[in-house]
Amino acid sequence: MRISDRMNNMKPSAVREILKASADISFSAGNPSAETFPAGELAALARDIFQNDYAEALQYGISEGYGPLRELTQARMRDKYGIGSDQDDIIITSGGQQGIDLAIKCLTNEGDAVICENPSFIGALNDFRSNATRLIGIPVTGEGMDLDRLEQALKTEKNIKMIYTIPTFQNPTGVTMPLERRKRLYELAVRHDVMIVEDDPYSELRYSGERVPAIKTLDETDHVLYVGSYSKVIAPGIRVGYAIGPRELLAKMTVAKQCQDVHTNLFFMILVARYVEQCAFDEHIAECCRLYRVKRDRMLAVLDEKLDSRMTYTRPDGGLFIWGELPEGYSGTELCTYTAARSVAMVPGTAFDVTESPLSRGFRLNFSVPSLEQIDKGITLLSESIDDYLK
Amino acid sequence: MRISDRMNNMKPSAVREILKASADISFSAGNPSAETFPAGELAALARDIFQNDYAEALQYGISEGYGPLRELTQARMRDKYGIGSDQDDIIITSGGQQGIDLAIKCLTNEGDAVICENPSFIGALNDFRSNATRLIGIPVTGEGMDLDRLEQALKTEKNIKMIYTIPTFQNPTGVTMPLERRKRLYELAVRHDVMIVEDDPYSELRYSGERVPAIKTLDETDHVLYVGSYSKVIAPGIRVGYAIGPRELLAKMTVAKQCQDVHTNLFFMILVARYVEQCAFDEHIAECCRLYRVKRDRMLAVLDEKLDSRMTYTRPDGGLFIWGELPEGYSGTELCTYTAARSVAMVPGTAFDVTESPLSRGFRLNFSVPSLEQIDKGITLLSESIDDYLK
Repeated sequence: MRISDRMNNMKPSAVREILKASADISFSAGNPSAETFPAGELAALARDIFQNDYAEALQYGISEGYGPLRELTQARMRDKYGIGSDQDDIIITSGGQQGIDLAIKCLTNEGDAVICENPSFIGALNDFRSNATRLIGIPVTGEGMDLDRLEQALKTEKNIKMIYTIPTFQNPTGVTMPLERRKRLYELAVRHDVMIVEDDPYSELRYSGERVPAIKTLDETDHVLYVGSYSKVIAPGIRVGYAIGPRELLAKMTVAKQCQDVHTNLFFMILVARYVEQCAFDEHIAECCRLYRVKRDRMLAVLDEKLDSRMTYTRPDGGLFIWGELPEGYSGTELCTYTAARSVAMVPGTAFDVTESPLSRGFRLNFSVPSLEQIDKGITLLSESIDDYLK
Repeated sequence: MRISDRMNNMKPSAVREILKASADISFSAGNPSAETFPAGELAALARDIFQNDYAEALQYGISEGYGPLRELTQARMRDKYGIGSDQDDIIITSGGQQGIDLAIKCLTNEGDAVICENPSFIGALNDFRSNATRLIGIPVTGEGMDLDRLEQALKTEKNIKMIYTIPTFQNPTGVTMPLERRKRLYELAVRHDVMIVEDDPYSELRYSGERVPAIKTLDETDHVLYVGSYSKVIAPGIRVGYAIGPRELLAKMTVAKQCQDVHTNLFFMILVARYVEQCAFDEHIAECCRLYRVKRDRMLAVLDEKLDSRMTYTRPDGGLFIWGELPEGYSGTELCTYTAARSVAMVPGTAFDVTESPLSRGFRLNFSVPSLEQIDKGITLLSESIDDYLK
């Protein structure tokens, strides 16, 4: 058997392997907390679907997704956040991941270049690798992608077809790009006629500061595909996400989706539609934010207390992650072996590095899953681990 | 915006477009009948999952799929049908379609050749096209793929990486390949070291004759990937399928799946596992067969009564489809305009043709969805349509 060239060197994601290892305290997940799942409401809605609408919900559906869910999502994102216009269309995807994958399939040929933040979400990076594209990493500063470096890349690199960005509460850094930067990013993309794929799974999980408009709100020239998800605000196991973007692109993504999985689980598309329409969705999100705010505040407080110049870390206004960085000359991967010895799991920066460089000084800390007690204990153990490693 | 080369010429499937058109009587679906969905049992199991296991069922899972469902499926297919060995692994997919798509992604480079039956399942053909592979169509006879033509292709064509076959109750023809042919097909694949992808969504829906062992049961050399599905024996809207095959290939397919949708809807993977384990699954399948047998028998009886040499048709032992063919010089596509005028929908053979030839004399008739009354009336109208067209 010969494996295709594009898949031959692909390995399971490092994060995934880390998640398999057991630890008493895990800061390594990318999961929302199960406490936030609206199981009671979903159960009641599901009962009704099984009773009255099972013939539709269990049958084949269309690749664009369940009509009412498309309409509700499109209306909500437009009315609430100004995302999407009359020029745009929407497709329901099997999680945000599929929105990214359909985009790369429809926008790039093998050998084309894709610009990514560095570090970035490993699920996207691996997807781009598995499509035999060339990754160009642009460093992430405290205000997101370094746009001078981006401009330079756009001027010098060949066959750039896509800019992949998570502008709000970025994975893994937690950093948010300010509006002025978003405007410049959009202008650069238009000038060089490159499509922006704006991956935005976290922006509704904001615990402080003012909401920054999505890049998609600036789009008047069909240069932004917005990828959204119900994973972090309802539940991830159901695999329901969406993508909003130019009709021509969405039509191709729909055909690509038809080849990939025909359509997303129809029962859950109906369930999510009814949840969004009939339940107090915005209140539910506010409740998630209250829960996560406390956890973020606690993790930052313990970091402030326990750590000094031996480690820098971001102060995200939302999302699920804080990004730590060791001083020059030290490795996040090595630190993770010290914390693992204390049964604390973190994800080393290497996993998110565009070049998979083992030199990354960073590591990712998740605060949505651990309890407050685990946060206290785990960060204390992290501090001891750094003592050990740096001494 | 520039669409990728592989997607640029892709169009939505013709079947899909036909399904959008309304008709009083539809023989055009590929759906199981909603009468067969075990909604009551699924509802009871779902209630229990929402009550006791929602924290797991709504959370992220692993890309291989829910462990118990993998084990139950693997054991069932092996014990009942001899499919899969110790050398093999299993992955749960988002419907059988995703099994096909992961295979093409992991087994072919752009420009490689894929051998398909002609006519064949449009969802697979479109997927292969969207992966920029070269399709080689091998005619389907009354006993499946013409193996002399296959042998010739294997000897003369370059870079053949995959043979795609639906050996049992083929879509669209309903034809089943006898065991002796399967053996020769397997031997040819081994001799030329080409992977067989055996797509088998229908074999449990048998209404007459003896079961023919899957090609996978012959595999001792890691040359067969078996693609199965719960779509036709439980329900399609839930998008739960599976693939059984060599470990090396399955490992790559798992990575590819991680990039595509992370994992299949976990709630429904758990639901299907419990259904298979706790409910009378085999009895349920027997019940589906009883229902469909009556419909198949009726469609064949009315065809026997109403039609003569103006049309030939297959006599499938199972599955969902009968394939009709007009005499030389007539077109299935043109006939469909005559039936559409009588508000009877069918799918013209062009849709399943590897080269999308408009010359196809064939058309597909589905008997699982229409009622007995609709079958009577629809076939009568088909007969009148043929009178009109051929006069």
